[in-house]
Amino acid sequence: MSAPAHSPEIPIGIDQIRDAADRLEGLAHRTPVLTCSALDRRVGASVFLKCENFQRIGAFKFRGAMNAILQLSDDERRSGVVTHSSGNHAQALALAAKLAGVPACVVMPHSAPAIKRQATEGHGARVVSCEPTVESREATVARLIDEHGYALVHPYDDWRVIAGAGTAALELIEESGPLDVVTAPIGGGGLMAGTCLATAGASPETRLIGAEPSRADDARRSLELGRIQPSDNPRTVADGLRTSLGTRPFAVLSRHLERIVAVEEPEILEAMRFIWERLNIIIEPSCAVPVAALLSGRVPGIAGTRIGVILTGGNVDLDPMFQHLAGRWLGHAL
Amino acid sequence: MSAPAHSPEIPIGIDQIRDAADRLEGLAHRTPVLTCSALDRRVGASVFLKCENFQRIGAFKFRGAMNAILQLSDDERRSGVVTHSSGNHAQALALAAKLAGVPACVVMPHSAPAIKRQATEGHGARVVSCEPTVESREATVARLIDEHGYALVHPYDDWRVIAGAGTAALELIEESGPLDVVTAPIGGGGLMAGTCLATAGASPETRLIGAEPSRADDARRSLELGRIQPSDNPRTVADGLRTSLGTRPFAVLSRHLERIVAVEEPEILEAMRFIWERLNIIIEPSCAVPVAALLSGRVPGIAGTRIGVILTGGNVDLDPMFQHLAGRWLGHAL
Repeated sequence: MSAPAHSPEIPIGIDQIRDAADRLEGLAHRTPVLTCSALDRRVGASVFLKCENFQRIGAFKFRGAMNAILQLSDDERRSGVVTHSSGNHAQALALAAKLAGVPACVVMPHSAPAIKRQATEGHGARVVSCEPTVESREATVARLIDEHGYALVHPYDDWRVIAGAGTAALELIEESGPLDVVTAPIGGGGLMAGTCLATAGASPETRLIGAEPSRADDARRSLELGRIQPSDNPRTVADGLRTSLGTRPFAVLSRHLERIVAVEEPEILEAMRFIWERLNIIIEPSCAVPVAALLSGRVPGIAGTRIGVILTGGNVDLDPMFQHLAGRWLGHAL
Repeated sequence: MSAPAHSPEIPIGIDQIRDAADRLEGLAHRTPVLTCSALDRRVGASVFLKCENFQRIGAFKFRGAMNAILQLSDDERRSGVVTHSSGNHAQALALAAKLAGVPACVVMPHSAPAIKRQATEGHGARVVSCEPTVESREATVARLIDEHGYALVHPYDDWRVIAGAGTAALELIEESGPLDVVTAPIGGGGLMAGTCLATAGASPETRLIGAEPSRADDARRSLELGRIQPSDNPRTVADGLRTSLGTRPFAVLSRHLERIVAVEEPEILEAMRFIWERLNIIIEPSCAVPVAALLSGRVPGIAGTRIGVILTGGNVDLDPMFQHLAGRWLGHAL
């Protein structure tokens, strides 16, 4: 746990995360940390929830995207940036680029929901469609870089993005006081990597625990086998965690993570519902995964401890729920 | 606006609200103040949302109930307290009494949802059923006071409850900085009265504006006519605002309130949805009423101002929504 903050493979540490926090000052929200006695009773510990579902664009992704944009060279700023995402990173990069006056282009599979495409275009980004395969996505990004000289801001396999993501854990630790455990979900691993580096730097004794859907447990398998095991289109409600672990996150997680706990699909929905009902906040399924891990009893040694959880985001399509609810309520009241 | 803080009819002011804040320290949550650029753009002003939907029991009501309980005499503590409520005040008084080790009894119409009764009993309170009429409710409360010597803690027509409710506005002003306008919904008027007294004391230049459903606009009619106009079972989705204005709130609102803005039922649901979607927080319909007033364009003179809103609570029965959502999501993912 007293590993050096830097290494040849891991060129960033707490200093770069503090720099990122300075850069994000006044641009990213300093999101609140919430507690809930009903959750504490269920988990048997004191749980501190860092609410990145209240972050700009509704997810922690804004931190990494903004931190990357703010480190572009003048040439890169003029040419603009490109990324691939059908999720929160697409909107995050679009908004960050708009705020910095930088052109942005997002490659998105044509199967992505129209609402995601509109939200990204709503922040002024150009959206380019590709086939819903890794090959098509990478070829499209490569072609756009060739043609336009765009700078790539990868959704998670980018040290600037990882450092930005780590600022959430830094704020959490500053606000909650000493923590015995910090946990977050793992998709591509950018958030967990930033969380590891921030926590190891600011609070070296804190245990670091990741959480994944058992249907998308590629990070767990990767760490066990010592090399990246790609996901193959896993079927989980936690849509933000379907992606495979990146090489940079893999290096960080290999060094800092104590363990990864896997949870089942009904546990994810039960945890999501618990948070909605007891905290009156909206979180997306991916975000419920570490909460599900805590509620499952599968995280050892947490009785009576102080646990920090990064709640990653709250972008859920509420339209069907509201149609349902409004019909009932207005029918009842009118 | 420079009226004295006290008067024969209004025996409390900012001092009693500060005392209440001291009493509630460590018992009530200091809830966060959230902002949202999409809301600011829609309203054309800077809006600061005091999130009492994150308060204990999910509503501001805990503040008033706890403040009242903490001022009981030793005799009253031994005998216990009674109130009538089928809403958030029932749970608030039950929890506050439990925390103070005081017996509590809640009179609730037998038509109240089972979930409300269970939640109140879950905090250790005795629930006594009555007919769903004002007469039956009052007779039942009177009988219980006679038989058991209970002390009444009225849901809103009680200066201790009003002072406790006012602590939310006090915290809001401390956190947001200067505000040009403060707004809150009006049901029985306890929250709005406490908000008026706190704001007039801490920030005398701030305009105070109430909001009501147009279908339950008894406070507006009462202020216009100069005497209380009772509601007659109004049919509005804002179930927390169906009650009639209390005499103590009437005195405070008559002195301090600039105006009351009334909103229509679809506006309430639209405002609720806006908050759910843009802020990722769950608010109940009653809580959406002042937001609906701001979005409606019916509040004059707010362009470019700084506006504080008390978000009162988030207790919504999510079960039908989750049944709907879980079926869709698990069906899709599995």
